[in-house]
Amino acid sequence: MERIPILKMGDFLLVTIQVDLYDQLAENLESDLINTISKYSSKGVLIDISAVSIIDSFMGRILGNIAVMSKIMDAQTVVVGMQPAVAITLVELGLSLNGVISALNVEKGMELLRSKMHTSDNEEQDYDDDNEQ
Amino acid sequence: MERIPILKMGDFLLVTIQVDLYDQLAENLESDLINTISKYSSKGVLIDISAVSIIDSFMGRILGNIAVMSKIMDAQTVVVGMQPAVAITLVELGLSLNGVISALNVEKGMELLRSKMHTSDNEEQDYDDDNEQ
Repeated sequence: MERIPILKMGDFLLVTIQVDLYDQLAENLESDLINTISKYSSKGVLIDISAVSIIDSFMGRILGNIAVMSKIMDAQTVVVGMQPAVAITLVELGLSLNGVISALNVEKGMELLRSKMHTSDNEEQDYDDDNEQ
Repeated sequence: MERIPILKMGDFLLVTIQVDLYDQLAENLESDLINTISKYSSKGVLIDISAVSIIDSFMGRILGNIAVMSKIMDAQTVVVGMQPAVAITLVELGLSLNGVISALNVEKGMELLRSKMHTSDNEEQDYDDDNEQ
């Protein structure tokens, strides 16, 4: 399959990564995600990697890219379901996933995003509303 | 990857099918799903097939099996995100997916499950609580 589905859940988007990411797939995921954030004015992106048992520097970079792109679009990225071995590998690869917040599972990730939304709602109100498609 | 991740979202479970199901994978999914329903006393299963562009009778049977198994475990199955071409193929294959309810997307599927939960809560209160693991 050529595309990873992006599921809209209220204010957030959920992406489950089940297949090995190669260049084209990763590129499609990035652009699809940005477009979907813009379309629905999503405030958060949950990336479930519980099915990922082997991670390499490419995948680490993709996750980092997504986090940075989403941040620019005013959406927070949370990576959920990371297997312990994957966390060890990431550190050994020297990837600290800057800008990416982690949560143990989707439920905790959603809670985290909701709490962050409430905090940022109080702090800043200056996002533009012209990104409807 | 050998297993399709099952995400717990409150009272429901979410499964995103992104890869072609073969025998072993489908068998694993069925047993994992039943075990997870039992573990969390889940009341509903959402199966997202938005990434599935080609469906065959095997996949149709698996969806039907999951619906029947979940029903026995007192959980309702909702298939979401079906592509129009897939719906056409299913009918042409003579598979009407008995026992499977459909919804356009995950959000609508969740609403449907919630409304069904409220209805059944009023009707029956006789589920057993001894399925904690």
